[in-house]
Amino acid sequence: MTREKLYIYDTTLRDGQQTQGVQFSAHEKHQICAMLDRLGVDYIEGGWPGANPTDSAFFAEAPRTRATMTAFGMTKRSGRSAANDDVLAAVINANTPSVCLVGKTHDFHVTTALGVSLEENVENIRASVAHLVSLGREALFDAEHFFDGYRANPGYALDCLWAALEAGARWIVLCDTNGGTLPVEIGRIVTEVIAAGIPGDHLGIHTHNDTANAVAGSLAAVDAGVRQIQGTLNGLGERCGNANLITLIPTLLLKEPYRSRYEIGTTEAALAGLTAISRQLDDILNRVPVKQAPYVGASAFAHKAGLHASAILKDPSTYEHVDPGLVGNARVIPMSNQAGQSNLRQRLAEAGLSVAAGDPALARILEEVKAREDRGYTYDSAQASFELLAREVLGQMPDFFEVERYRVTVERRKDAKGRMVSLSEAVVVVDLAGEKRLSVSESLDETGSDRGPVNALSTALAKDLGQYQDAIADMHLVDFKVRITQGGTEAVTRVIIDSEDGAGRRWSTVGVSPNIVDASFQALLDAINWKLLRETRVAEVAE
Amino acid sequence: MTREKLYIYDTTLRDGQQTQGVQFSAHEKHQICAMLDRLGVDYIEGGWPGANPTDSAFFAEAPRTRATMTAFGMTKRSGRSAANDDVLAAVINANTPSVCLVGKTHDFHVTTALGVSLEENVENIRASVAHLVSLGREALFDAEHFFDGYRANPGYALDCLWAALEAGARWIVLCDTNGGTLPVEIGRIVTEVIAAGIPGDHLGIHTHNDTANAVAGSLAAVDAGVRQIQGTLNGLGERCGNANLITLIPTLLLKEPYRSRYEIGTTEAALAGLTAISRQLDDILNRVPVKQAPYVGASAFAHKAGLHASAILKDPSTYEHVDPGLVGNARVIPMSNQAGQSNLRQRLAEAGLSVAAGDPALARILEEVKAREDRGYTYDSAQASFELLAREVLGQMPDFFEVERYRVTVERRKDAKGRMVSLSEAVVVVDLAGEKRLSVSESLDETGSDRGPVNALSTALAKDLGQYQDAIADMHLVDFKVRITQGGTEAVTRVIIDSEDGAGRRWSTVGVSPNIVDASFQALLDAINWKLLRETRVAEVAE
Repeated sequence: MTREKLYIYDTTLRDGQQTQGVQFSAHEKHQICAMLDRLGVDYIEGGWPGANPTDSAFFAEAPRTRATMTAFGMTKRSGRSAANDDVLAAVINANTPSVCLVGKTHDFHVTTALGVSLEENVENIRASVAHLVSLGREALFDAEHFFDGYRANPGYALDCLWAALEAGARWIVLCDTNGGTLPVEIGRIVTEVIAAGIPGDHLGIHTHNDTANAVAGSLAAVDAGVRQIQGTLNGLGERCGNANLITLIPTLLLKEPYRSRYEIGTTEAALAGLTAISRQLDDILNRVPVKQAPYVGASAFAHKAGLHASAILKDPSTYEHVDPGLVGNARVIPMSNQAGQSNLRQRLAEAGLSVAAGDPALARILEEVKAREDRGYTYDSAQASFELLAREVLGQMPDFFEVERYRVTVERRKDAKGRMVSLSEAVVVVDLAGEKRLSVSESLDETGSDRGPVNALSTALAKDLGQYQDAIADMHLVDFKVRITQGGTEAVTRVIIDSEDGAGRRWSTVGVSPNIVDASFQALLDAINWKLLRETRVAEVAE
Repeated sequence: MTREKLYIYDTTLRDGQQTQGVQFSAHEKHQICAMLDRLGVDYIEGGWPGANPTDSAFFAEAPRTRATMTAFGMTKRSGRSAANDDVLAAVINANTPSVCLVGKTHDFHVTTALGVSLEENVENIRASVAHLVSLGREALFDAEHFFDGYRANPGYALDCLWAALEAGARWIVLCDTNGGTLPVEIGRIVTEVIAAGIPGDHLGIHTHNDTANAVAGSLAAVDAGVRQIQGTLNGLGERCGNANLITLIPTLLLKEPYRSRYEIGTTEAALAGLTAISRQLDDILNRVPVKQAPYVGASAFAHKAGLHASAILKDPSTYEHVDPGLVGNARVIPMSNQAGQSNLRQRLAEAGLSVAAGDPALARILEEVKAREDRGYTYDSAQASFELLAREVLGQMPDFFEVERYRVTVERRKDAKGRMVSLSEAVVVVDLAGEKRLSVSESLDETGSDRGPVNALSTALAKDLGQYQDAIADMHLVDFKVRITQGGTEAVTRVIIDSEDGAGRRWSTVGVSPNIVDASFQALLDAINWKLLRETRVAEVAE
């Protein structure tokens, strides 16, 4: 059975840039084009040439892409010819093989926002598309507010589409600009448009996520017969964002009825790069990746419920709708209060600890985890601290050193020039197999700026650990998260520290206390102990 | 036309707790129950009594709610009677009016995961539900993996539903446990289930967001005839989360065909609290609210595109699918244009500051807010600090006192009995109109427990402020939130403090620094200054 071609049109660089706080540089747009080509989309909408300096700079040196590069603009204004409209000329001068022009199809907008007659607007659409076609460009028409317009005045909305189609537009894109049309309604209207004679293989869909239905609305339009989907990477876009291609592409490629019916440009090999592409975009934007994102989120295949985790171990298909490897993601079995014993054994195995099923130590570990989580600890996101706790219960935790005491001072006062400055100082006293070591550090970084008490404490703690000093020399703190939570009846502070070492290992530890400095200290101590454990094991293996 | 009742079942406290990194304390569960009652849901699933200490503690002192409190558990195991199953007994002993039991309906899971015969599983469902009914409880049956099960073996999946229904279950909830079933398929299967004789007003839907279709799947099930929707606040939940009630409720209440067809427990007045409820949950979880969240996100009604922004000023309905005020949200038009200044004037008026339109001070305040937000401050949730900043720019901020210096010491050492104990001490030196005052406090509370350095600092700062002492005597710190954020290129700590006074006023202040103690100190100082401002004004009015 031959599958029909379904076209994917990416507008990350244009509508995606309407996201609050997002402004791509021309260089970043080049990076994103390379990502889109790896993914295998059919069209890349690069921006609006002439609308702002960055978009103009991008098109002046647009990358050569496998996907069809498309410039975005709007239909010509009234009172001038298509050839004499300077805004349209700027779009055409970007010299892209394909051009997408947005125009009005909702009578209310034509008269209210544009202030022109209904006939004039239809003529503007026709003349603009005809002008593109006469120049040999592939023409797309974005029918703005189409669904609202069709509900208000179906005859007029269709007239606008016909004008574009008859002038030679390759694609008519039905846009739910305000994002308020529900999927069933989108399906119904697309069906009527096709019944009116506009061919489905000339129709596209452009949805927004204002009711969390952008993906469902796109699928409903495909079900009704459109053959182009517009969307963005990670669902970037104006207000609540556009249809998320990172979600739509795996659904179209992996799930029925789409898998059997349609062919898209993304191969299964490219799909395995999906998670990396999503995270790379977050990197460019300096955003924390959304953990719960479908397919690509860090939690998308995390099985926290005890019942789920034990079934997953028997057969992953019991609680996974697709194999995480297909989208370049991975299964996660977190440890927590909710977990059962099989979940626990799996987690222990990941830490290199093999405990037989039914071993009473499992119950003791679970009990300890539950008791500590009740006091505010969390082990979901602190696997290293979990391992230390388990080893403690199993009697497999070496005593590397003991902290006898510490003291941290935070001071803020006027300096010689009368400016307020702050400085922290930390003293740590450790017992190393009977030998006492005192270390002191202050909180200033290389530029002389105060980095605070936790920094001073961390530096002092790692300053002199005798025979262990070499083993911890390459570790450093990469992230530090604080939250106030409830431990029993009192508010306590929970600190999670992420550490990294020269070998590229990254591990997370947790500390809890009403005293934020002490909570941080516990997490720091766990981080060092975990690192020593790893280095000691490496040394044993090497011997 | 009478509208049919559609029931909303919230599982934030149970399935929502399956979110990676989420672990509610019993106290937080109480807070969330109050939020759910404000919103007007019909059922609250409080947790699984007996599964973990927190859930057991919650049910031991469950709040009295308007919504029907429901305990969750699973159907009895094979080889024992419903009355003799200790896991089921723990659920029943929570004494809730309603009980929801999950059970298998997919033949593959029955044999693979449970390892019992298909007949035994049906009997377990029947006997468990019958047991609940015999005890006078309202019984719900969560049909796990129903859609996968129905596809594999429709006859068996239906047998399971019939067993629950005939045993007296009030609700049969069709669960798409793996989140992989697309909305059209959900609609088709629900239609067939109802055609097979199971009444729609006994059916519920439970979806997950693994393909970003949880909301659409729930709506498709309602369209096909179910009358109960299960979901969570902010879409918390296992993996990619559950159906988001914060999105579904406004869609059901405001949009057709739902608005005309169904009655839900949420009133339009309650809906106006929707944004506040969503943010309050994020506060409890110390999560950054998702800007692009439908209806309640900070960007949900932000109009960045130039074309959109100018049209919005003519008529908001041009680019808004609903009025943001209906869900307690607000329109955002980038600060740079005129609407930015009118927003600012509105905000100043809320603080009792009247500044004329066009006053150059408005631009100076905007600039200062922007510069500080760039360094990591946030004034959205710290209106008191915003007021102080504005007064500073306007030259309307009295100098009550000046802090010359402070010092905080945090120590941890062994006590006389060899136990590790910690203690903080703070010294604050203030200048009160030329007169110097030194105050010292330590961090121990009335029970002798260490409450940490910020507590010591707060106590010392508020200990002796001379003529102002009376004015601050009734204020206390009620909440303290810490977030690591980016200030320029460096990670900095942002502290937000909520304070309250005897008159029931509650206000929020912010501090930012790489040094967490100093960030806290700034927020404490703002809190006191704001209180003094209020008391001074009250005194002026009283004179």
